[in-house]
This record gives sequence, C-alpha cells and structure tokens, in this order.
Amino acid sequence: MHLERVDGYLAEHAHEFEEQLKDLIRIPSISAQPDHDADTRRAAEFLLKDLKDIGLKAELIETNRHPLLYAEWLDAPGKPTLLIYGHYDVQPPEPLEPWNTPPFEPTVKDGNLYARGATDDKGQMFTHVKAVQAWLKAVGSLPVNVKLLIEGEEEIGGANLENYVATHAKWLECDYAVISDTSQFAPGQPAITYGLKGLAYFELIVKGANRDLHSGTYGGAVANPLNALSTILASLKGPDGRIQIEGFYDAVKPLEDWERAEFRKLPFSEADFQADLGVSQLVGEEGYTTLERKWARPTCDVHGLYGGYSGPGPKTVLPCRCGAKFSFRLVPDQDPKTLEKLVRDHVAKVCPPGVTYELIAHHGAPAVLVDVKTPGFRAAVRAVEAGFGVKPVFIREGGSIPVVGLLKEHLKVDTLLLGWGQNDDNLHGPNEKFSLADFHRGIKSSAHLFEELAKEATTTS
Amino acid sequence: MHLERVDGYLAEHAHEFEEQLKDLIRIPSISAQPDHDADTRRAAEFLLKDLKDIGLKAELIETNRHPLLYAEWLDAPGKPTLLIYGHYDVQPPEPLEPWNTPPFEPTVKDGNLYARGATDDKGQMFTHVKAVQAWLKAVGSLPVNVKLLIEGEEEIGGANLENYVATHAKWLECDYAVISDTSQFAPGQPAITYGLKGLAYFELIVKGANRDLHSGTYGGAVANPLNALSTILASLKGPDGRIQIEGFYDAVKPLEDWERAEFRKLPFSEADFQADLGVSQLVGEEGYTTLERKWARPTCDVHGLYGGYSGPGPKTVLPCRCGAKFSFRLVPDQDPKTLEKLVRDHVAKVCPPGVTYELIAHHGAPAVLVDVKTPGFRAAVRAVEAGFGVKPVFIREGGSIPVVGLLKEHLKVDTLLLGWGQNDDNLHGPNEKFSLADFHRGIKSSAHLFEELAKEATTTS
Repeated sequence: MHLERVDGYLAEHAHEFEEQLKDLIRIPSISAQPDHDADTRRAAEFLLKDLKDIGLKAELIETNRHPLLYAEWLDAPGKPTLLIYGHYDVQPPEPLEPWNTPPFEPTVKDGNLYARGATDDKGQMFTHVKAVQAWLKAVGSLPVNVKLLIEGEEEIGGANLENYVATHAKWLECDYAVISDTSQFAPGQPAITYGLKGLAYFELIVKGANRDLHSGTYGGAVANPLNALSTILASLKGPDGRIQIEGFYDAVKPLEDWERAEFRKLPFSEADFQADLGVSQLVGEEGYTTLERKWARPTCDVHGLYGGYSGPGPKTVLPCRCGAKFSFRLVPDQDPKTLEKLVRDHVAKVCPPGVTYELIAHHGAPAVLVDVKTPGFRAAVRAVEAGFGVKPVFIREGGSIPVVGLLKEHLKVDTLLLGWGQNDDNLHGPNEKFSLADFHRGIKSSAHLFEELAKEATTTS
Repeated sequence: MHLERVDGYLAEHAHEFEEQLKDLIRIPSISAQPDHDADTRRAAEFLLKDLKDIGLKAELIETNRHPLLYAEWLDAPGKPTLLIYGHYDVQPPEPLEPWNTPPFEPTVKDGNLYARGATDDKGQMFTHVKAVQAWLKAVGSLPVNVKLLIEGEEEIGGANLENYVATHAKWLECDYAVISDTSQFAPGQPAITYGLKGLAYFELIVKGANRDLHSGTYGGAVANPLNALSTILASLKGPDGRIQIEGFYDAVKPLEDWERAEFRKLPFSEADFQADLGVSQLVGEEGYTTLERKWARPTCDVHGLYGGYSGPGPKTVLPCRCGAKFSFRLVPDQDPKTLEKLVRDHVAKVCPPGVTYELIAHHGAPAVLVDVKTPGFRAAVRAVEAGFGVKPVFIREGGSIPVVGLLKEHLKVDTLLLGWGQNDDNLHGPNEKFSLADFHRGIKSSAHLFEELAKEATTTS
C-alpha cells in the first residue's frame, strides 16, 4: 500500500526528476581539472540543497580538495540501515571534437539523455535520491534507515573518501550498501554485479639529455626517451595477450566452473560486440572468452602518451622528456601494493640504458567478489524485477569501484551493485548517455529495494 | 704575388668588413614571419648593392615569397667556375627572454659577435663576398669565375630555390660549389664536411575501435591502439641499437678504414660530450664509436607521441586513435623511396591484430658523401690551412643540408662544405654568436680557395 503511493508519486514527478537531473548535469564538476574546482563544489551544494529539501539531515564535509556530501534519515528504529554511495564528480569531457552536442548541455535524443555525467554517475546516483524523496514525500517515512555518502573525487581516485570512511566507521555503520554506477547486462536485461576488477594506475616519465636535441646532430649518440618509453610499454604484454611482468599471475584466482557456465548461458554475441566496436577482430588473452576476459581476467592498457612534437608536419626533435599513463585491471586476489612492487621491478629490468625514469603509482584498489546467496541479494533481485519487469542476471565487471573494497574493509559490508546503465553509454568517452526509461526504472527499483530489505530483515531476524 | 696583395687588402679592411656585417645583421630578415617580409627584402637589397659596388653583375630574382639573389663575375675564360651558395634569411629570435643582448643589435664580447644570423648564415656567407671584393679591389680580377646564389628561404624550407636551380641548370653550370653554413670540428680545428646524412620522416596513426572506450569495460576484449603503437615503435630498434627493419642495412655503405682512422685521431672526448648532455651513458649501435654513430651510421628516432589522455591525474580511457612521428637518418647509399617500402612492409608485419593504421611518409632526402680525393678538396685543404694556420680535418655530419643534394642532382656538382662556425654557436637558439677571428680566417680561406682552385685546374688539365 505504501509502495503504491510511492509508485504513484514517481509517475507524477517523472518529468520534474528529469529536469532536476539536467540541472545537476549542467554543472561541469570535473574533479581532475583545477579550473573547475568551483563547479565541482557547486554540484555538491546543488545536491546538499536537494537532500535537505527532501527532508534529510545533510551536510558538506570539507576536505583538502572536493567536499564529501553526507545525509541521513534514521527514523526507522529496529529496521536495517542502508548506505547509499554515489559520486557527483565527472570525467573530463576531452576530446571535445567528437561530441555531437555540448558535453554539459544535456540533450535528449531517442529517449537517451546525452551529457558528461549522465550515466557516470550523476544520473544513476540521483535515482536513489529521488527514491528517498518519493518515500518521504508520499509516505512520510522510509521502511529502512538510510545514509547517503556522495563524493567528488571518484574520477581522480582522491584519498578523502577513504580517510573519511576509515575514521568514521562507527558513524557510517550499516547493514547493506548499495551503489548504482554500473551497467545492465544488455538493454532489457538488468543485472546485479557480484564481482569487480581492481585497479593499479601508473604514470611513467622517461628523461634523457638535459635539453631537447637535434636528431641529426645527436641521433644515434644518445638514448631517445621516446624510443625507450615505447620499449618499456611494449614489454608489458606479450603477443598472446599475457602480461609479461614476473609474478603478475601468481595471486590470480581462477574463474570457477559455475561462473564460466553462467557466463556461457548469457545472451552475449561476440559478433555483435565486435561489430558495435567496428574492429576487425577481438583481441585478448588466449584461452578465454571475451566475457571472461572482460570480467574476470587481469588486463593492462596504456591510456595516454605525451612528449616531443605532435603538431602538424615534421620536426626532428629528440626530446629530453616524455611520459605515459597505463594501468592494470586486477582480479581477486591480486594486491595493488604487491603489483606496484612487481611493476617497479619490471620497469627497472626492461628500461633501456642511457635514460632515467620516474614511476608514479597514481592509485590502486583490489578487486571485489561477493557471495550472491545472501538476504541483500535476494531483496535486490526482487526490487530490480519490480523496477524493470525482468529478473536480473548476476554478472562481473571489468571496471573498478574502489569504494566497494573500502566499505568492505572498514564497514564489513558487502555492496549491492545495481547498475542502471548500458554498456554503450560511453562513460568516460564522448557522447556519454543514459536512458531516461532506465533512469525511472532505477528510481523505482531503489524505492522497492528499501521495502524488500525491510522485509528480508523481518523474515530473517 | 696576387695573394699577397689580397691578404694585404684583407688586413687593411678588416674593421670595415666587420662594420658591414653588423649593418647586414641589423636587418631582421626573419623569413618565417610575414611582419618582417620588408626587412627580408631589405637584406637582399643590401647585399645586391654591395655585390654591385664590388664589381659583380647582380640581380634580385623575384619569387612568390622572398627574392633570390644572383651575382656573377665570369671574366676568367678557361678557368674553373665556382658556385657560392648562402642565405640571407635568419631564424626567428624567439624566445627573446634568454638573449643577453638584443638579437638584432650585433654586440662584440670576448671576440665573438652576438646576434641572430651572426653565424647562420650572414656571417659565414659574407666571408665569400668579402673575399671576392678583396680580389677585385686589390688585383682587379679573380683567378676563377664565380657565381653567387643567395636565398632568403633557407630557414623556412621554401621551394623557390629548388624551382630555380631545377630550371636554370645551364645558367648555374659550374665546376665546384662551396657553402659555408656548418661548423669547425672544434675551436682551433677547422674542418671540411664531406658527408651528410639523409632523412626519411614518417607519421604512423593507429586506430582501434570506432570510439574511445572505458578500459574497465573493454580492456582485455579489444586491441588498444596505444599498446599497439608502442609495440610497433619498440620493434624498430633492438637492444643492440640496430634497426630491425628487414633489409634496412642492405644498401648501407660501410665506413671505410681510413675514415674510422681519421675519426679516431680527432680530439673528441666522449666523457665531455656525455657530461655536456647530462646523461648517465652514451647509447647507440654496438660496435661503433660515438662520432661514427653521429656521422656515419643510420639512426632511427621517435620525435613525438600523441593519443589518449595526457592531462593531469589518471584517466582510464582506451583511445580509438593515436599516433607517432619518427624518422630515419640515412647514410649512403640508402634510398628514401626504398626505405619507405621497407618501413611499410615492417609495420604491416609487426602491427598487432585488431587495429588498423595509416603510415604517412612526410619527406625524404638521400645522404650525401663526396669523394675527398679530388682537386676541389685538395684546393680547399690548402685554402683552409692558409686561412686558419691549421690543416682542416675531414668530418661528416648527422644533419641534412638539402641544397647539397639539389646541386648534385641538377648541376652534377659536389659541394665543398667549409664551415667557419663552432658547435656552440647557438644557431637557431638565443645568443647566437660568431667568432670575429673565424670571420676573418674564413674570408682569407675563401680568397685562397679561388687561387687554389685555379692552380688545381692548371695542374690537372
């Protein structure tokens, strides 16, 4: 009966929710770019006001960079507590040229909302805020206690969330955590993600002579940092797709038979996947299917190269400095700290003579794999089915959500990863999008999750 | 007897020559900067007047940009003809901040003349003009016929010189060519450059999926263009410094024993060279000394990399496109066109699966190596010894001087590269300088060259 009122409220306020989301998206809260620090704060303040308007106790928590946002409604004594995590910061929109519409001017086309942050994570995070609103406005209360923790440094791997969680474990105590920052398995097929890869991100700066040199006068006499950098990067992976760092696979937990069997049952077409990307073939570690590689095998990718002359035409410079950004996606039970040591040993071993380098470990997070046979998962399955009309499948993800590991470590809680996005939402790329239908289904799923978690607590306690 | 009169004239007019050079240098003939087009023309007109005053037939040849200057004195029938090439345009002086004195206000300090164009090439080119003057004023005639071709687009790689030479081969016909636009081996050790490297410059663009992807969602499933590019670039050179392109060394003319012996005799300190560059060690092809590698072995250098994210902090993008610029410095008898084919075959062979690429050949020029056992070289050795009091050494250069190839192709003439500069003259950089003592030694060498070439003609004909 409560749920009916909630569902009615959602239907009535659908348009208003969309407009609010657009307003939030218009704020270019690019956490990586100091020029946008004021915008990033503005996004936090926008949410702070909305949460207060809804009826939550909410506050900004200042940090040395972007503020954290904390809000709570704890008036359901004896009921479980759900911690909702999200982030209000977004990736840089660059390169701008491929965008069909301005990245911070949300544009609806064919039922999708196009903009930076539409799916990652403003749109998805906002579903929970609006679900809370629906309960409080339509019913006056929630069936569970909720705490919201929304950060502004997710895209830059800032340390402030970790510091806060580590020092406020008691304050954040909860029975369940939920995050919507992932994807459905496919359009029309919602999913619950039970495994995430970890991440270890590095930047390598290679230096040669004390100044840029003319390649005619000096070529062949001194090491060229650009050639050295290429050699180091090329050494990371072999032609069989295996990472060639000594000891890299030692801690890798093999895929279990039941998982491989489940993956095979999913309606995944390698041919469609390949056609969508427009590549001549799919490439990766030998001996694994594409889904297995994407979800459950460690990977290594270079993300950016810089150095020397990249303007039009030729210039015969032998630059004194260049660099690359690269990362590894980790699976259980690889440890980022251990990997950092392995990477340092590897670079030291393969770096050609005559250059020096600096290896910066940007940030790291271990992989996560959670038990699916728990009350929280049972509740989530029913909630998602209510929101989407289809039972969700269980999947793993190639991406990393460091906060999941963080919540496990400090709050001892497993996270329900309920993804409302689609795989082709172009998060981090140009023309990021989010289906408005899924936005509303997500809100409904979240609203039902509160009810289902309360029910599980009653049944199981 | 004639030479004594010439030498006397040079001594008497030394101060006047310096003042004339300063006047020429004060004209900011920066060919790259349209704001200075009038100045560039002014420099040509300054020289035109001077050449006419000396007694030559001289004219400006108009082009679609900066004029060429042609002058001749052909009243020595039966005697050889020497073509003198130089350029009156200069590099932009920017950045201005590091200059200790204004770039276009020639300033003498410790015997050096500091100004843009002092050594490259106004000061060096002017030595031949003043040598011609000395003969015509002191003796009334020259022992050889001379043609002067002085361009105003050397620093911008303009096509006008090439067009002119290609269409005026008969007009420019000569027995010898001389250019002073290089350096001595070291202070007090003049040199004749008998070999220059060629160049083959490429740009490689590697493409993956039809859009930038998230490395978590897609990593391990598709080829990453940045990894592929690194692999291709790393494959160009082996750890022994050898270029690993099949057939690359087939046409390479080995260093001759006499050359290696001459190079070894030169006062070159690998330790000083290394210390100046600030590198931990000198690196290059095994089995060759640093001078051999710099001057006489082909090299391969990457000049620039671009693609993916290179801003601050981490971004986990898997970019759809990236690129690199790289070139090979060629030695005789490598052909840039043949090399282009070898490079294309190599990239096709080593390019990892799942990406496509575009290989652009930017421009190429073959190496130059001239026979030093010729009358022209014998004459030049004696002339330089007369001017500098020291016998010149024979050296090669890692850089390219396209006009040398041009004169060889269209006029079938080898060029005497008599460099009066020093390696630390900062040509193209701030605080360019030219030793005034070397300016006068260069004039004397040039004046003696006319006589020595005439003598060789008499002896050999």
